[in-house]
Amino acid sequence: MKYHRVALATFILTLPVLLFVSCERAPEDTAEVRQAIEALNKQWEDAFNRGDAAAIAALYTEEARVLPPNGPTLFGKEAIQNFYQSGIDACGCDLQLTTLEVGVARDLAYEIGEYASIRPEEGEAMRDQGKYVYIWKRENGRWKLDVDIFNSSMPLPGQ
Amino acid sequence: MKYHRVALATFILTLPVLLFVSCERAPEDTAEVRQAIEALNKQWEDAFNRGDAAAIAALYTEEARVLPPNGPTLFGKEAIQNFYQSGIDACGCDLQLTTLEVGVARDLAYEIGEYASIRPEEGEAMRDQGKYVYIWKRENGRWKLDVDIFNSSMPLPGQ
Repeated sequence: MKYHRVALATFILTLPVLLFVSCERAPEDTAEVRQAIEALNKQWEDAFNRGDAAAIAALYTEEARVLPPNGPTLFGKEAIQNFYQSGIDACGCDLQLTTLEVGVARDLAYEIGEYASIRPEEGEAMRDQGKYVYIWKRENGRWKLDVDIFNSSMPLPGQ
Repeated sequence: MKYHRVALATFILTLPVLLFVSCERAPEDTAEVRQAIEALNKQWEDAFNRGDAAAIAALYTEEARVLPPNGPTLFGKEAIQNFYQSGIDACGCDLQLTTLEVGVARDLAYEIGEYASIRPEEGEAMRDQGKYVYIWKRENGRWKLDVDIFNSSMPLPGQ
């Protein structure tokens, strides 16, 4: 009887500690998330470089937003597919994405990266280089691109 | 004796449920965070409009990054202060920030917003309008700007 009371009391007293440790101190596995995000960026890059904007759009959430320079915000997969298809058609370039940083909390992650586009048919001439911030969302265990904003690092023509 | 066994077993069995509910279902108070972020944006805007880049830099984390269009990424408060002081000096404009969306997980938040700059001395003429994504980080209970990327929504000159 006494033993059980002690056991019970111990459980009740350790409960807040357990909750604290498991909720607040649970380390986000940033390395694992970064690996998943880098693999998805590779898919993004490959899709762009083979001209497949539908495969790019498939990496985004249903209600994703793309905020491109010099134009309005685009909402949803269809608008995003059309936007990147136009980009692929106009660019005639290969794109490289490089992840520089990933931060994670629960099912939300941000990524800072760099992009570079080159024209293989013009001796790999640099067309543009810039940077991006992606917001990733975990849906049913899979990371999806939810917000995509980027800008060029090259000076404006004439500056 | 039997009663205590039942009580103990109940505790052990409900522990995973308690952990699940308290960790995974704890709703982030997005409305409260959004309110805090909007108040900080107001400070950002007011600092810009009175030409006080030091007060802008004070809203950022120590290791904050600003990713401006047509230039390299800036790291840290000093670089950020210099960048926005140049912006204030060159612009001669008033800036408006409008929060469109906030998402939160633990001590990480993202914000999507719009900016507009006008020239009061030229009859409120629009100089630029665009959009931004901010990553906010909660440090010692206070939200600080950690990543700042933006671009113009206006077409490039000549396009």
